[in-house]
Amino acid sequence: MHLNAFLMGVGHHEAAWRHPLTDSGRITDIRHYEELARIAERGKLDSLFLADGLALRGEVTHNALGALEPLTLLSALATVTEHIGLIATVSTTYNEPFHVARKFASLDHISGGRAGWNIVTSAGESEARNFGLERPAHSVRYHRAEEFLEVANALWESWGDGAVVNDRVNGIYADKSSIGPINHDGQHFKVEGPLNIQRSPQGRPLLVQAGSSEDGKEFAARFAEAVFTAQQTLEDAQEFYADLKRRLPAYGRSPYDLKILPGVSPIIGSTEREALQLEKELEDLIIPAYGLRQLSHILGADLTGYPLDGPLPPLPPNPDGQQSRIKLVRDLAEREGLTLRGLIARLAGGRGHRVLAGTPEQIADELQEWYQNGAADGFNIMPPHLPGGLADFVDLVVPELQVRGLFRTEYDGRTLRERYGLSLAGVS
Amino acid sequence: MHLNAFLMGVGHHEAAWRHPLTDSGRITDIRHYEELARIAERGKLDSLFLADGLALRGEVTHNALGALEPLTLLSALATVTEHIGLIATVSTTYNEPFHVARKFASLDHISGGRAGWNIVTSAGESEARNFGLERPAHSVRYHRAEEFLEVANALWESWGDGAVVNDRVNGIYADKSSIGPINHDGQHFKVEGPLNIQRSPQGRPLLVQAGSSEDGKEFAARFAEAVFTAQQTLEDAQEFYADLKRRLPAYGRSPYDLKILPGVSPIIGSTEREALQLEKELEDLIIPAYGLRQLSHILGADLTGYPLDGPLPPLPPNPDGQQSRIKLVRDLAEREGLTLRGLIARLAGGRGHRVLAGTPEQIADELQEWYQNGAADGFNIMPPHLPGGLADFVDLVVPELQVRGLFRTEYDGRTLRERYGLSLAGVS
Repeated sequence: MHLNAFLMGVGHHEAAWRHPLTDSGRITDIRHYEELARIAERGKLDSLFLADGLALRGEVTHNALGALEPLTLLSALATVTEHIGLIATVSTTYNEPFHVARKFASLDHISGGRAGWNIVTSAGESEARNFGLERPAHSVRYHRAEEFLEVANALWESWGDGAVVNDRVNGIYADKSSIGPINHDGQHFKVEGPLNIQRSPQGRPLLVQAGSSEDGKEFAARFAEAVFTAQQTLEDAQEFYADLKRRLPAYGRSPYDLKILPGVSPIIGSTEREALQLEKELEDLIIPAYGLRQLSHILGADLTGYPLDGPLPPLPPNPDGQQSRIKLVRDLAEREGLTLRGLIARLAGGRGHRVLAGTPEQIADELQEWYQNGAADGFNIMPPHLPGGLADFVDLVVPELQVRGLFRTEYDGRTLRERYGLSLAGVS
Repeated sequence: MHLNAFLMGVGHHEAAWRHPLTDSGRITDIRHYEELARIAERGKLDSLFLADGLALRGEVTHNALGALEPLTLLSALATVTEHIGLIATVSTTYNEPFHVARKFASLDHISGGRAGWNIVTSAGESEARNFGLERPAHSVRYHRAEEFLEVANALWESWGDGAVVNDRVNGIYADKSSIGPINHDGQHFKVEGPLNIQRSPQGRPLLVQAGSSEDGKEFAARFAEAVFTAQQTLEDAQEFYADLKRRLPAYGRSPYDLKILPGVSPIIGSTEREALQLEKELEDLIIPAYGLRQLSHILGADLTGYPLDGPLPPLPPNPDGQQSRIKLVRDLAEREGLTLRGLIARLAGGRGHRVLAGTPEQIADELQEWYQNGAADGFNIMPPHLPGGLADFVDLVVPELQVRGLFRTEYDGRTLRERYGLSLAGVS
C-alpha cells in the first residue's frame, strides 16, 4: 500500500485554522513544514504531496491562505529529510517546459532521486488573469499538457546515462555525443535543448496526475505513474480504478505502471465517539458564507441567496467546470439527502474527498477494504488538522496497517520511483 | 565591507575541475553546496550568490557544466543555514512576473528574510531558442525588465503589512481591504493579482543587478540595491562607482541605497610564491580550444584559426554583445600586451573579473585599497577552486579584514536587507 501525506497549511478541514489543535500563524513558517516532514518520514510514508494554484483562491477573509510555493518548499525540505518523496504540483498551462523540466531535475538531484511532479492544467479563470491570458478551453489545455510532457521527457533524455565521463587527466568532462539538442517544433512549443542540467538520479521525476475527465484519464494512461482521485464510494472507486487500468495497454503499459491513490481525510479518535466529537467541533467552526462560496466554486455556479436549510437547487450545466467533481457532489447530496448546510459540512473536510471519522482500527479497516478490493493502490492522506492529524495517522493508523502486513516497516528502494515499483528506465 | 560568496560548481577557474584540489564529480551533489554554505557562514559572509543561464553554455566537453538550478538550490540551502543571504539569478526575459515574485516571496519566508534576486535580461541566442523565441534586442529586454520589476514590486505590495489578522474566535483570517488586485495592464504584461502568498519578512527580496551598459546602469539606479560588476583597474572601478552613485538622486535615492560589489577571484597562498604556483598549476590545465571558445563567446566573434601566440585580432563591432565586457577584454589585452594565449589565461580565472594571486595580507591590502578609495562597497568573491578556495578566503583573508576593522565579526541585522543597511520599507 502506498501512502502520501498531502500537506495543506494547518489542515485540510476548511475550519482547521480556527480549532485549538492548530496554530494558524504557522502557514508560512518553514519549521511547521519541517515538523510535518519529520512526522511523515517517521511513519515511512511514500511522499509529501503539495497541491497548487496560481491565484489567491476562495475567500481569504475566512481561511488561512497564502502559504509557500511548492517547488521552493519541497527543495527546502529535501535537505532536512532522507527518504520521503517530494511531489510538487506545477501547471502546464502557465509555464514553459524548459523551466519545469530543469527545476524538477534539480530537485531530483538535491533530494537524491525523490522528486515527483503532479501535473495540472489549471482550470481557474483567475489563474489565467495573472498571466494576461484568457482561460484556454479544456481540450486546448490537455493538448498543451501532452505536448508539454513530450518536450519535458525529451529534455530529461537530452543527457544520456553515461554523458559525464569526468576524465580530468585528458580534460574530457562530458561525452558530447551523449548530449544532444531535442529540436522540438510543435504547436505550442519550440525548444532547442539540451537541458542545462545533468541527468538526475531518477532520470525524470515521478509523474503524478489528478484529472478524472475523459481527457484526464487518457492523459494519465499515457504519462502518469500515480493518479490522485476523489472517490466517495467503493463502487465508484472500483469503477474508476478498473477504467483507468484498462486504458494502459493501449500505451504499451502494464497495470502495475500506474498507482491509483484516492484521497482520504482521517478524523481519528481513540474511540469512535471521540472521533465524531472532533468532527463535530470542526463542523461547528465552519463559516457558512465561506462554505457556500467554496461549494459555488466547486460547482461553478453562484449559490448565494439559496436557503442553507433547503436542498441543492437544480443548476445549469457548466461545461468549463470539473465535471467529475461536480457529479461527485451532486451524487453525494442526492444519496444522503443533504441540505446545503449539510453538503457544506460534508465537503469542508476534503473538498469532495472521502472523510473517515473513527478509531485507528476502523480507519485501517476502510483503507484495507478499498485496497484489497480493486479500488486503490494506496491513499493520499489529507489530515484534517496539522500537525496533530498527521501525527495521529502515523502513530496510530500506520502501526495498525503494518501489523496487518499492508504497509512497509522500513524504507525500501533508493528512489521514489523504485518505491512505487516502477523502473528507472521507463522514460517513454 | 560586504562580501558575497559567488559559488560556481567546483570553482571559477575554468580548469578548476581538473585540479587535484577539487572533486568534479560533485557539481550536482547537494552536500558539496551545503559544505560551501557552512564555510561561508563560518566566515560571516553576507550572501551566497549564484549566476545562471538558460542554456547549456560553452563547451561541456571540456568543463564541468550542468549543475543545479539556483532557486531550488538556494531553497535547499535555506534550511541548513541561519544567517547568510541567498541571492539567485533569474531572467526577466524568459519568465513571468507572477511566478518570479511568488517564488522569491516563498524563498524569503523559508529563509526568514534572506532572499535576494539578481536580475538579468539573458543576452544569449541559445537561451532564446529554448523558449521558442528570437533573442530580443538589448533595449527591448531592458524595457521588459523595467515593466517586470514594476509588476513584481506591485505584487509584493499586494498584501499589506497588517493583512493577516488571524482572529480565530471571530473567523477573520485576513483583512481583505489590505489585500488587493494590482490590475497591471502594460506593454509586456497583464497581471491581475494579488499574489497568492503572504507578505514575506523583507517585503521583497534584495534586488541585485549586474548590467554595465547605459540601460543597465539606469536600471540599476532605479531598482537595484546591490550591483555586481567586473572591473580590472582601480581607476575604472572608481569611475564606474562614481557614475552609478551619481545616478541615484534622479530616482529619489541616496548613494547608500545601492552597494557596488566588483568581482574578485583570490588565489591564496601562505607565501606569494605559493599563490603564484597555484595560479600556474591552474593555468597549465587550461584547454586552449575551450579558452578560445570562451573568449569568442565573450567577444561575440569567432576566433577559431587565429594563432594562439599572436595578438588579439581586430574584430568587427558586435552590437548584440555585452559592450562593457568586450571593452574590458580589449583594454586588458592592450594594456598588458597579451597574446591570445595570454589573454585566455588572464580570463580563465574570472571571465573578465579581477584575479588576485597573493598572500592573505596582500589580498586584504587590495580589497582595502578599493574599498577605501571609492571603488567598491564590498566584493563578490569568486574562489578559483571549491570548496578549498572559499575555505582559504574565510579562514585566512576574512580574519585579516576583521583585524583591520573592515569586516564584521558577528552577524548583525535580522534580514539580508538590514545587513546591507537598507530599509525594509523601501519598496518603490
